[in-house]
Amino acid sequence: MYKIVPILSGQQVDEVKAIAAGATFVDGRITNPHNTAKQNEQLHDATAYQQSAQLLQTALVGNEEFRNFVFPSLIAPPLVTRYTPGMRYGAHTDVAYLQLPGGTIRSDLSCTIFLNDPAEYDGGALHVQLGDAHVRFKLNPGEAIVYPSDTLHEVEEVTKGERLVAITFIQSRVADPFRRNLLYNLNEVAALEGLKMAPENFTMMQLIQNQLLRHWGEKP
Amino acid sequence: MYKIVPILSGQQVDEVKAIAAGATFVDGRITNPHNTAKQNEQLHDATAYQQSAQLLQTALVGNEEFRNFVFPSLIAPPLVTRYTPGMRYGAHTDVAYLQLPGGTIRSDLSCTIFLNDPAEYDGGALHVQLGDAHVRFKLNPGEAIVYPSDTLHEVEEVTKGERLVAITFIQSRVADPFRRNLLYNLNEVAALEGLKMAPENFTMMQLIQNQLLRHWGEKP
Amino acid sequence: MYKIVPILSGQQVDEVKAIAAGATFVDGRITNPHNTAKQNEQLHDATAYQQSAQLLQTALVGNEEFRNFVFPSLIAPPLVTRYTPGMRYGAHTDVAYLQLPGGTIRSDLSCTIFLNDPAEYDGGALHVQLGDAHVRFKLNPGEAIVYPSDTLHEVEEVTKGERLVAITFIQSRVADPFRRNLLYNLNEVAALEGLKMAPENFTMMQLIQNQLLRHWGEKP
Amino acid sequence: MYKIVPILSGQQVDEVKAIAAGATFVDGRITNPHNTAKQNEQLHDATAYQQSAQLLQTALVGNEEFRNFVFPSLIAPPLVTRYTPGMRYGAHTDVAYLQLPGGTIRSDLSCTIFLNDPAEYDGGALHVQLGDAHVRFKLNPGEAIVYPSDTLHEVEEVTKGERLVAITFIQSRVADPFRRNLLYNLNEVAALEGLKMAPENFTMMQLIQNQLLRHWGEKP
Amino acid sequence: MYKIVPILSGQQVDEVKAIAAGATFVDGRITNPHNTAKQNEQLHDATAYQQSAQLLQTALVGNEEFRNFVFPSLIAPPLVTRYTPGMRYGAHTDVAYLQLPGGTIRSDLSCTIFLNDPAEYDGGALHVQLGDAHVRFKLNPGEAIVYPSDTLHEVEEVTKGERLVAITFIQSRVADPFRRNLLYNLNEVAALEGLKMAPENFTMMQLIQNQLLRHWGEKP
Amino acid sequence: MYKIVPILSGQQVDEVKAIAAGATFVDGRITNPHNTAKQNEQLHDATAYQQSAQLLQTALVGNEEFRNFVFPSLIAPPLVTRYTPGMRYGAHTDVAYLQLPGGTIRSDLSCTIFLNDPAEYDGGALHVQLGDAHVRFKLNPGEAIVYPSDTLHEVEEVTKGERLVAITFIQSRVADPFRRNLLYNLNEVAALEGLKMAPENFTMMQLIQNQLLRHWGEKP
Repeated sequence: MYKIVPILSGQQVDEVKAIAAGATFVDGRITNPHNTAKQNEQLHDATAYQQSAQLLQTALVGNEEFRNFVFPSLIAPPLVTRYTPGMRYGAHTDVAYLQLPGGTIRSDLSCTIFLNDPAEYDGGALHVQLGDAHVRFKLNPGEAIVYPSDTLHEVEEVTKGERLVAITFIQSRVADPFRRNLLYNLNEVAALEGLKMAPENFTMMQLIQNQLLRHWGEKP
Repeated sequence: MYKIVPILSGQQVDEVKAIAAGATFVDGRITNPHNTAKQNEQLHDATAYQQSAQLLQTALVGNEEFRNFVFPSLIAPPLVTRYTPGMRYGAHTDVAYLQLPGGTIRSDLSCTIFLNDPAEYDGGALHVQLGDAHVRFKLNPGEAIVYPSDTLHEVEEVTKGERLVAITFIQSRVADPFRRNLLYNLNEVAALEGLKMAPENFTMMQLIQNQLLRHWGEKP
Repeated sequence: MYKIVPILSGQQVDEVKAIAAGATFVDGRITNPHNTAKQNEQLHDATAYQQSAQLLQTALVGNEEFRNFVFPSLIAPPLVTRYTPGMRYGAHTDVAYLQLPGGTIRSDLSCTIFLNDPAEYDGGALHVQLGDAHVRFKLNPGEAIVYPSDTLHEVEEVTKGERLVAITFIQSRVADPFRRNLLYNLNEVAALEGLKMAPENFTMMQLIQNQLLRHWGEKP
Repeated sequence: MYKIVPILSGQQVDEVKAIAAGATFVDGRITNPHNTAKQNEQLHDATAYQQSAQLLQTALVGNEEFRNFVFPSLIAPPLVTRYTPGMRYGAHTDVAYLQLPGGTIRSDLSCTIFLNDPAEYDGGALHVQLGDAHVRFKLNPGEAIVYPSDTLHEVEEVTKGERLVAITFIQSRVADPFRRNLLYNLNEVAALEGLKMAPENFTMMQLIQNQLLRHWGEKP
Repeated sequence: MYKIVPILSGQQVDEVKAIAAGATFVDGRITNPHNTAKQNEQLHDATAYQQSAQLLQTALVGNEEFRNFVFPSLIAPPLVTRYTPGMRYGAHTDVAYLQLPGGTIRSDLSCTIFLNDPAEYDGGALHVQLGDAHVRFKLNPGEAIVYPSDTLHEVEEVTKGERLVAITFIQSRVADPFRRNLLYNLNEVAALEGLKMAPENFTMMQLIQNQLLRHWGEKP
Repeated sequence: MYKIVPILSGQQVDEVKAIAAGATFVDGRITNPHNTAKQNEQLHDATAYQQSAQLLQTALVGNEEFRNFVFPSLIAPPLVTRYTPGMRYGAHTDVAYLQLPGGTIRSDLSCTIFLNDPAEYDGGALHVQLGDAHVRFKLNPGEAIVYPSDTLHEVEEVTKGERLVAITFIQSRVADPFRRNLLYNLNEVAALEGLKMAPENFTMMQLIQNQLLRHWGEKP
């Protein structure tokens, strides 16, 4: 399941862009030296990285829609990434466990936060393959797409302009996508219909939600 | 979870009692020779057995509340059983797989259909132990108690009068009790609240119910 | 995961269309009376149904690509369905267990076989929702789309011409979609690369495939 | 499964009561503002809370019967709670994950430690619903009832006197109740019968216990 | 886990050998044409096959030790196979699902029944690889080795004399080897120690065995 | 599955032996007082223990073959142990959870690092029972055998000379042995054959490996 969440306000987008504008970028292969499919640039200055990561992480954690969909347990510091003409990230799969300075994280969900206007560049769609189905995302500034890390996906070649995004990886309390999505959908129904329900039926809904969350959720 | 379901009408109770009245009973150990805890009598005539089993099985299968709670896949032919003073069935556990003439059945749920008035006998409660909690059932004629086969239970000694019941064992499409009960409860909420819901939310509820049933249900 | 499989030759398409042309159709709600979202027509004559179902079922079972993707255990008789202008099948979910004349089937996968040219009608796409992602299929005659039964999907309104398809439901030996797709992908890699491998590595691949199939597959 | 464990000595009961007697209590909704079913009072002073919680937590951890039944991984600081006439806690379900000052805890088991004599108040039973079965607990001072957090339960209205208890929530190393209870029962049999067994059979029992514990237990 | 079970009496061994002596054998690749690792001969006459298969199948089903270890649900008709000098069956893995005339069988366990004296041939050991551990079996006439189908195994080259065995494949009610072995071991302890136990502890043992069997066993 | 891994260089073996030579040993029952099967001696000096444990732990963590096979999450400090004539460790099973100074560890795998030449002592093989199969290991200095903690195993009596080993216990990210071994085997095939594969097939292999690792791996 794929979820688009507005994460950043216009002002926050501008802040991240300002940080990026004043920072140096390096070849993205610095963190994946053997990955020839990866052709992009990522923000490199320690300070700029820390500032942007903190702003983005705070925005994610503070977003209820994001939390409800993701059941976040750990969020990797988001990394600002850019693609200029000719750059692309060929079809690949995100690794299951990432070594970060703060420890290891299991990447259940991947998240791309778009930072500039899709009209500013040609190409550059996030393209997910589901067998013979193809889904493409090219979102507005401040919007994030959250998608399972275990699908084959690529960033299509940018042919004009610049694509600026931040990417991150999330370990969820509910690791299995089927279960996580079901819990999200059940919670949506309960949130939208709960106040109309007879109290004992709403209590039963909460019982069921808690039973499933306990049954499927990892230890904290 | 324990469910009381009215299964038989007064007339059907009378029919089963009439069949039993004209039939011979034998020591219950005939089907469990090594089980010294079992001290009761069970209906033995082939014809009476067939007639009563068919009536009872039809009543169970035709009962929507029973079906919703049990998700029946196979139901053993119910057997009329009686306890006269001094008889009891000590704490025991029902076997997981039963060899029946028609094949093997996995006993997920046990069911006792009470046939005579609790005022007609002293003792004879179905007593289920849940660690230090104790639950007792002594129901009205025609009512059935459906309970998990994998709990320690006993029939307490009858000290006066006669206790007449029919017992059966059910293989459920949803073998796990936690999952079966959750599906039952979710269906109850949907049945009671569904018509009040916005159509797209009700459709989502049905999606969730079908997802869980498919995820947890055995092959037909 | 979504898979497009060419199932019928041009001649077979013509045969099914000829059967349909000579048959009567009835309101699709005949098999789902309470489903107001369903607005289509389905083939009704017993003989035409039997002939078309047999032709289509034989084509599915005989298709290796279909078998490799689906791990079929049971296939419901495909039913020819048509949509004329104004008809649609609103967003819905396929039930988990279907009662068929030959017994019960668990619907793990749904399959739509397209029978006429997409140029012959406007609208009528099969539209699957994956949260905020949307996938649409409108295939060539003889092509089938196989998709998980447990997603929210709809047939968009036909606004011009006629849409003729056959639909069916499949119980898979590997009920879980994640596991089924992984086995399919692993088999594809083994099929494409196996002959190049060192014999002991290919034997190991087969061991792994058999281990997973045994671990995840239902009893036959 | 429900387990009654004597946790506190008479002296320890008196100590907790003395702490409670000198402390202020506040409306229990302070920690669940939207829960209208909750009508009770809970101990509020930081020092009194810390003292009582430490005493109670130490008593729980030091109790072998409790440990054997619960496989405790985390225990929330127990909170002294009181009900005066008219107070009750309507049927509710305990949430799956609790945010505590020290971190998040998954509540697998709930525990009520009774602090005053049941003769001192009318009503106030802990009432657990298991479908159509009902279980009530009103224990002696110092006794605790441990029960699954995921059942519908209530504290019945106190109609006379005062009910004083401490409540806590436990994250178990074996999250699933079926598995936890089975391990407890198997360990009880091994403890009671092990010394009589042939050494190789007792070793096999230990092998089985360790296999199940490893198979079902969470990472530490 | 590997189990040696005496299946055939000396007389039964002689009967099977007599059937084999009067029958024709064909290249074993007749049933696995693409398997170059398979270099053996298998009994081919329809009558001889039926006679030997029935004798062997009856012996297996009638053997309590075999049943306790295997939890048999389906047993493929055993096939008499022979290896003369130079023949071997290189390291391979048994397929998960076998197509047999009577339907499909999932091969959980493989079984080799040795028919002639190990002194009559050199080589020909059944060799199972468990990573860097190696286990070899060369049993007495009438003895069977039962082993998991999902390990890499081979029949080492026969360098002198003739190796005569019967092989078969078994679908178990408890598909998972870890679970099946645990149930077997628990049953062995209960059988050896049960009569010495206090009745309530023995009842608890039976409860646990039935709970596990129900929890892990497939539908009949 | 059993894996032999060369862990220590000759020089490292000498270092550990030097540490052991200068240290005192105590009766091994000091850490298992009730275990009468345990008849060995273990290194006791705090400094010697720390030095040897650190050297051995570093060697294990730094060994890629070990990491690939074990998916280590926690490794207990290895303990140098010796057996002189008459000493043995009877058939036993390793406990599921070990209390260590640094916290609790779940023992999924056990590991014995051999420190002196097998020619220096008679007896002393590590003997693992797999039902009726028996595997024995008596390795060269510096070699380690890694084996599942949940099998019945023993150290056979040393009848001459001295057996010097280090033992440790490992908590794996992939707790289940079936799954861990499958992931190891799949990675071996990918490592040996990956460079020969078409890029899209190798990407698919990585997708599958990451899917399985994510599906089966514990939270970090």
